Amino acid sequence: MRFSLAIHGGAGTRPREAMTGEAEAGFRAGLSRALLSGCRVLEKGGPALEAVTQAVIALEDDPHFNAGRGSVYTSSSTHEMDAAVMDGASRKAGAVAGICGPRNPVLAARAVMEKSENVLLIGQGAMAFCRGQGLAFEESAYFDTPERFAALQAELERRRLKREDTRDDAARHGTVGAVACDAAGNLAAATSTGGMTGKLPGRVGDCPVFGAGTWADESCAISATGHGEVFIRYAAAHEIAARMRLGKQSLAKAAEAVVAELGIQGGSGGLVAIDAAGEVALPFNCAGMYRGRIGADGIAWTGIYREPLAARELSAA
Amino acid sequence: MRFSLAIHGGAGTRPREAMTGEAEAGFRAGLSRALLSGCRVLEKGGPALEAVTQAVIALEDDPHFNAGRGSVYTSSSTHEMDAAVMDGASRKAGAVAGICGPRNPVLAARAVMEKSENVLLIGQGAMAFCRGQGLAFEESAYFDTPERFAALQAELERRRLKREDTRDDAARHGTVGAVACDAAGNLAAATSTGGMTGKLPGRVGDCPVFGAGTWADESCAISATGHGEVFIRYAAAHEIAARMRLGKQSLAKAAEAVVAELGIQGGSGGLVAIDAAGEVALPFNCAGMYRGRIGADGIAWTGIYREPLAARELSAA
Repeated sequence: MRFSLAIHGGAGTRPREAMTGEAEAGFRAGLSRALLSGCRVLEKGGPALEAVTQAVIALEDDPHFNAGRGSVYTSSSTHEMDAAVMDGASRKAGAVAGICGPRNPVLAARAVMEKSENVLLIGQGAMAFCRGQGLAFEESAYFDTPERFAALQAELERRRLKREDTRDDAARHGTVGAVACDAAGNLAAATSTGGMTGKLPGRVGDCPVFGAGTWADESCAISATGHGEVFIRYAAAHEIAARMRLGKQSLAKAAEAVVAELGIQGGSGGLVAIDAAGEVALPFNCAGMYRGRIGADGIAWTGIYREPLAARELSAA
Repeated sequence: MRFSLAIHGGAGTRPREAMTGEAEAGFRAGLSRALLSGCRVLEKGGPALEAVTQAVIALEDDPHFNAGRGSVYTSSSTHEMDAAVMDGASRKAGAVAGICGPRNPVLAARAVMEKSENVLLIGQGAMAFCRGQGLAFEESAYFDTPERFAALQAELERRRLKREDTRDDAARHGTVGAVACDAAGNLAAATSTGGMTGKLPGRVGDCPVFGAGTWADESCAISATGHGEVFIRYAAAHEIAARMRLGKQSLAKAAEAVVAELGIQGGSGGLVAIDAAGEVALPFNCAGMYRGRIGADGIAWTGIYREPLAARELSAA
């Protein structure tokens, strides 16, 4: 049986000089848990859509990552989360934007895809729909983490002092996502994010914009992370799919070229991509991207900076 | 001086048998006003972005069309509007979703593009931003029209009785939009909508999803109307741009093929498209689409069903 899964926990990362061994171990453990969570679905012959959902749930539940529990704060000290899922074979899709309540925003996106006639629901209407679907909700305090709150305070202070924005990418934004190719060759993608620290309430990035931050069709599945506005303006994810289908490019060539072009346009970030042969590409144009992949051998490979991915044995997870 | 502008006032239309001469004259007058409004910008050498904005303002102000003043009702008897603008040369873009208050949602989208660092703002956050920008607001009553309210009541009654949905396309959805090529060869697109009658509060269609319902780059500009969920799942607008750029197809060929394919997938609707030579394509896969085009001769051409466009002299407007 052949299958493959790739994930990201956001680009960019903490700068290498600010990364302690303990912190790095925490990020890698979180990535490995998510990889193994998705892998468990695929090794039973389960669908790519369920594998990416489970991988993203694991990342949303881990406060290391800016999605679900670890979501950053808006400029009003609130949380507003976005999430999206897309199934390649059927091109069914679901997304939510501007929600705070559902424990796992990716399950809200799945519910929109599977239980509504719609593709995108936002704000209070989306929350009411999620309640009607019986999704698990959490109090606002569940999403409060001291590190994210400190990041907001620092950002608000910077704005008060009108200082230049010298934050590293990790402090600005982050997203989690997964792409998978299941044993039947079907593809799926899922993305979830808390957005950018100090974002204007109501701001939505590329995550729930299908063709920008999330995409899946017969040829590839893509989940992006980075400066979402630029990814939207260049339809980043669909551009890769189009170059493969219409330009006869390989996944790696198309994904790497698009990410490099986004960088030239001021779109710092990266993405994970997979094709119907299970090949993955994990390009990024910034210092680092929390990322990983796993195949049928069950070995979780993870990486943070530009070093090669490192294996983590199944038994160590 | 060469320039060109095309608009739509939604697909589908009222069925031909339900269209009175008076109603048809009203629709055609509204389309002509919008064409002339955009044309006035272009004939002075103004930018495509401003021309599409002015054309959409005229359509938003006309209660014949489902956008701005004539917006349909959600299932909660409220209005929730979406709008988007995109400039081809710079690929700058702005959109709002789920708003009710700004008189002209397209100006809200312009403000997001020009006055914020963001591309997409939704709901209350978007409204607060619009107030901060000094945009003209209207009371909710401004957006109330008896015909739209009656359409909602009929739809709610149908749902209560669990009757089959036999509404014509016009009763279900509608959108307005414009695309232009200015004298400098730059392209722009704008789209604005009240969404679908009886939609779930929070539902967002393809209008503010760049690459789906709205798109502009160097090769083409596109504004779509129809069953937005399907347009999103097929990245309709960006797919046309990609077939032109990567597949070396003409605007007409790419636009017509994509609209036909959307129809096969259950995506009733159409779109207006323009290329950098000012050529336009106005394909639709349903009974009709309120549409029109105008060029440097200042003659407004409009159409509703599958008949050829009819000219309306400048003096008659």
